[in-house]
Amino acid sequence: MRLKPFEDRVLIEPEEVAESKSKAGIILADTAKEKPRRGKVVEVGTDEELAEKIKIGDTIVYAKFTGDEIEFEGKKCLIISRSDILAVIR
Amino acid sequence: MRLKPFEDRVLIEPEEVAESKSKAGIILADTAKEKPRRGKVVEVGTDEELAEKIKIGDTIVYAKFTGDEIEFEGKKCLIISRSDILAVIR
Amino acid sequence: MRLKPFEDRVLIEPEEVAESKSKAGIILADTAKEKPRRGKVVEVGTDEELAEKIKIGDTIVYAKFTGDEIEFEGKKCLIISRSDILAVIR
Amino acid sequence: MRLKPFEDRVLIEPEEVAESKSKAGIILADTAKEKPRRGKVVEVGTDEELAEKIKIGDTIVYAKFTGDEIEFEGKKCLIISRSDILAVIR
Amino acid sequence: MRLKPFEDRVLIEPEEVAESKSKAGIILADTAKEKPRRGKVVEVGTDEELAEKIKIGDTIVYAKFTGDEIEFEGKKCLIISRSDILAVIR
Amino acid sequence: MRLKPFEDRVLIEPEEVAESKSKAGIILADTAKEKPRRGKVVEVGTDEELAEKIKIGDTIVYAKFTGDEIEFEGKKCLIISRSDILAVIR
Amino acid sequence: MRLKPFEDRVLIEPEEVAESKSKAGIILADTAKEKPRRGKVVEVGTDEELAEKIKIGDTIVYAKFTGDEIEFEGKKCLIISRSDILAVIR
Repeated sequence: MRLKPFEDRVLIEPEEVAESKSKAGIILADTAKEKPRRGKVVEVGTDEELAEKIKIGDTIVYAKFTGDEIEFEGKKCLIISRSDILAVIR
Repeated sequence: MRLKPFEDRVLIEPEEVAESKSKAGIILADTAKEKPRRGKVVEVGTDEELAEKIKIGDTIVYAKFTGDEIEFEGKKCLIISRSDILAVIR
Repeated sequence: MRLKPFEDRVLIEPEEVAESKSKAGIILADTAKEKPRRGKVVEVGTDEELAEKIKIGDTIVYAKFTGDEIEFEGKKCLIISRSDILAVIR
Repeated sequence: MRLKPFEDRVLIEPEEVAESKSKAGIILADTAKEKPRRGKVVEVGTDEELAEKIKIGDTIVYAKFTGDEIEFEGKKCLIISRSDILAVIR
Repeated sequence: MRLKPFEDRVLIEPEEVAESKSKAGIILADTAKEKPRRGKVVEVGTDEELAEKIKIGDTIVYAKFTGDEIEFEGKKCLIISRSDILAVIR
Repeated sequence: MRLKPFEDRVLIEPEEVAESKSKAGIILADTAKEKPRRGKVVEVGTDEELAEKIKIGDTIVYAKFTGDEIEFEGKKCLIISRSDILAVIR
Repeated sequence: MRLKPFEDRVLIEPEEVAESKSKAGIILADTAKEKPRRGKVVEVGTDEELAEKIKIGDTIVYAKFTGDEIEFEGKKCLIISRSDILAVIR
């Protein structure tokens, strides 16, 4: 069974945020830190043009407040639209 | 009698949410859990391009807050627009 | 005298809602029930493409909060735009 | 002197609302009744495509809250855009 | 020195509103009367298509709340966009 | 070093507002007077079509609340988009 | 490892703001000064048309409230969309 993003979307696994501690040693909750907004591409959509530009394994940077959360094979993933991809890190 | 979604829409039957209990054993009401936003395609619209991409029986993932509820043959179904289809699971 | 919807609109007669009673036997007012949002097509607009897809006598499902109410030949009808037609039942 | 609607607009004279009385015999003010939103086409705009579809003398039905009021030759008229014409009655 | 409206705009001189008195003989201030929204075209923009449709000297009717006020050669004028021209009076 | 507006924008130097006094002889602050919204074109953007229509040295009239303030060579300038240019004075 | 802006975006390093003191000698916090909105282009996106117009090393002026902050190789950078580039300084 395979999840294929539809048209010009990609499926990414967001980068793990290293546990961070505030100066007082308190582990910060997710809501108190800015999330990295980087992720590894797990699957590319059916759009051929996009498939030439983004490859599985690429790390992408995506815009704030974008992406639809989805749980797939036990992992928290995000579906990101092409227009919300800001940069590719290779 | 047959219901055919119009143009680039699909008719889906949302995935059953397994009954879940909170730690205290209380069955959570629908409003207290996040719905899965997955469903099985029951019928594909009249748009030919869409009909090549989505097939009856496919499971699709759709965007939050989308879909028009409709009761058909005693089942609660949703009509989803092409632009709200995020991914296809086969 | 004939009313012809303009361009890509259809004229429909909304489906009668069977009188329903609450458990206590009180007839529910229209505002307390969800309306069916189905209707029978009485007339199709002047748009040729639409006229091939929707026929007089078809039952259509239309989106919430859409349609312009109009009284025609003593009946309460609705004018629905093509983009608000969700499905056709034949 | 002639007023010609510009491009895809029509000039209409709204249908007279027959004086109506409430049960208590009080003549209702305009603001208390729903206006008919029908009118007779007095002049068609310069757009050739529109001029083939709408003729002087046609009665049109137009969308709520649309139309620019204009006084012409002592009559209260409305200028209606093509996109706000819902139906034609002939 | 000449002011030429840019692209699809026209420069108009709004029609003088004849001084009006209320029944009690009080001259109404501008804010208390509806302005006529008619004006004489003083200059037509650089857009060739528009220049064929609107001529210097035409009286146009324009939409409410539109137009940029500009003082030119001591007169209060308005720059009106093509999309806000409702009708032409010749 | 040269500042070139990007694509269909122009760089202008807003017209000096002659110092004005109220009847009581008090010099009015900038916020209390309407600014003229005229300026002299200092540089035209890279868009070739625009470069044919607007020349360095032209005075343009621009729409209210538009333009990005920028300090260049000690002068307060504005970058104005093509769509906000209302008229050209030559 | 290289960060490449996606499609019609550029990666810039915002210009350093020289430390400024108010008359009373107090160093102003970032929020109290207007930021320069100029930056040096570090990388140009994959869009070929843009790559011909903007070069690495160019200084660009960008619109207020635009740009996505991103930390890259220890520097605070911004990803700016083509439509938010106001001018190029060479």
